[in-house]
Amino acid sequence: MANVILIRFLFIYIYQNKLIMNKTILLGHGSGGLMTSDLIRDNFVKHFNNPLLNVLTDSAVTQIGETTVAFTTDSFVVDPVFFPGGDIGKLAVCGTVNDLSVSGAKPLFLSAGFILEEGFPLDDLERIVHSMGQEALKAGVQIITGDTKVVKKGQCDKIFINTAGIGLIEKRYASISRGKLIRPGDKIIVNGYLGDHEIAILSARENLMFEEPVISDVTSLNGLISSLLETGLEIRFMRDITRGGLATILAEVASSLKHGVLIDEQLIPVREQVNGLCEIYGFNPLYLANEGKVLMIVAPESAELAIKMMQRYDTGKEARMIGTITSDNPGKVLMKSVIGGTRIIDRLAGEQLPRIC
Amino acid sequence: MANVILIRFLFIYIYQNKLIMNKTILLGHGSGGLMTSDLIRDNFVKHFNNPLLNVLTDSAVTQIGETTVAFTTDSFVVDPVFFPGGDIGKLAVCGTVNDLSVSGAKPLFLSAGFILEEGFPLDDLERIVHSMGQEALKAGVQIITGDTKVVKKGQCDKIFINTAGIGLIEKRYASISRGKLIRPGDKIIVNGYLGDHEIAILSARENLMFEEPVISDVTSLNGLISSLLETGLEIRFMRDITRGGLATILAEVASSLKHGVLIDEQLIPVREQVNGLCEIYGFNPLYLANEGKVLMIVAPESAELAIKMMQRYDTGKEARMIGTITSDNPGKVLMKSVIGGTRIIDRLAGEQLPRIC
Repeated sequence: MANVILIRFLFIYIYQNKLIMNKTILLGHGSGGLMTSDLIRDNFVKHFNNPLLNVLTDSAVTQIGETTVAFTTDSFVVDPVFFPGGDIGKLAVCGTVNDLSVSGAKPLFLSAGFILEEGFPLDDLERIVHSMGQEALKAGVQIITGDTKVVKKGQCDKIFINTAGIGLIEKRYASISRGKLIRPGDKIIVNGYLGDHEIAILSARENLMFEEPVISDVTSLNGLISSLLETGLEIRFMRDITRGGLATILAEVASSLKHGVLIDEQLIPVREQVNGLCEIYGFNPLYLANEGKVLMIVAPESAELAIKMMQRYDTGKEARMIGTITSDNPGKVLMKSVIGGTRIIDRLAGEQLPRIC
Repeated sequence: MANVILIRFLFIYIYQNKLIMNKTILLGHGSGGLMTSDLIRDNFVKHFNNPLLNVLTDSAVTQIGETTVAFTTDSFVVDPVFFPGGDIGKLAVCGTVNDLSVSGAKPLFLSAGFILEEGFPLDDLERIVHSMGQEALKAGVQIITGDTKVVKKGQCDKIFINTAGIGLIEKRYASISRGKLIRPGDKIIVNGYLGDHEIAILSARENLMFEEPVISDVTSLNGLISSLLETGLEIRFMRDITRGGLATILAEVASSLKHGVLIDEQLIPVREQVNGLCEIYGFNPLYLANEGKVLMIVAPESAELAIKMMQRYDTGKEARMIGTITSDNPGKVLMKSVIGGTRIIDRLAGEQLPRIC
């Protein structure tokens, strides 16, 4: 008996040390959730240590000479490269345009870095680059610098694109993405159905067929956002709802506040097909990625007008209020569920689906 | 006989059509040579069409508000990730710092986008990120925004890093990387031995052993370059000598000029071990990549002082003049060879070694 216990302890000891010795990157490190935050804190922030990075918003806001700019970057590895509603190129432009826009910046210039797999069809590349050009034109940004690397067949999966972006920011918006302006009573607004992008990717990857297929919502939001900013609405926070979904952003916001967040499940716009697939795959729509959705927290007196203004845009037709900032439950996100009762919403540790953007 | 000819023509017809139908990305498209230029012209410039990109210098130079900035991007896919003299992280910082510096800009801010393969050791990641932090500190730049994506095992090779960078540029230097200031009689200077980086990568990849190993020259050149600019030397052109090597840059410069370029093989600094390996592998040292070398074209009266000033820096100890801009042979690069005679130097179509940066 003593031997059995000894062997068991020995086994646990070796196993744990093996885990400690061989810590490696897991898919969850790229989820945008808790594991990503841990990696950023323990690694990037530690070694790149500077006050601008440490804020960990979508874009860094900084001074260059007399000018205040926002600067951001994103790599795109979406699989498949072409999906209903878009492709990796459109995604790469929209993603960076939106990161700048939610920082209160006017997106101006993008860079584009391509990593290509040997054997990738030139026609597909041209289709992607054309799509980037079209989306840049639509969003009013210029792609002014780029880079191309090619790796041998099997050393990357088809095509990866990085875009970095620079936007011009008015001083009064410089802290809009930091959440410091949020007050109890503020209203939480989204500009439409959640989860379409991730479900479109899932459907394309798994060759799922629907009567009404789910189309990615990938789009540039700078038009919608700047029109709301310009009317002088009291917008106290913005963030685009990408990897990690609504729940992750709200959990991040709450954890940095002395207030709480209360959302109402019944008010959260999710398409029937999206909800259906979530049930089949065991996903939670609150964690689904979007590529054309913004979460805004606005002063109560600005909420109604903000929603009306959003609804004038194709990208905001289904805009609605989904919750409120509360003085109760500081640091927590609570959701009033459809069946009654309230539950705590937390960040996911890992991720539901890899390579969605 | 007629049949044989017919079959032969048929074969050629099918082969050519297959080539036309299945045009794909080849390793040479990432070489920095002729195939890269063709890809950029026929694809990126065509669809991203804007005057800033169309200049095709290392950095785009543009106005943001009242401020003139340089903006650049590079993806790094070097294999192996750790090599004599550096690693992919140091390379990613130096590469972008140098691209900004040769545009006459003071590098200020970098972004860092990571694409990680599932299973990549966290310790290795930390070593790389630490190295980026150290090099950023040394170069006086801040890494202020980042992104992390993870792909499944086998979908990328270990780690790819993209860095984009912003630098502040004084108006008087805004066109220094465009070559419009170059005049016949100007002197061509390099700051040291050529080819060390590519040979260090080759040695690491092939496990070659030397008595005196070749160490990559990867380093940030912003200190050396800004000190030369600040003394008011007449610097008429700068470019960092990376993929494609000295020959590719000179061929690009010549092709945009109404003048010619004459270099002297005997004056070009190449280490003995580098020359030796080039002979064994059939490489030409003129096309080898560097990661800490700058080519400057300066007014004749500034040449001597420029070399002296470079030599004060560790990164410029072996600086020397290697050639002259001529009014003869417009658009061509000629090299006076060691054995006498003169030959034309052209761009490589493909590349000597993939994934060197």
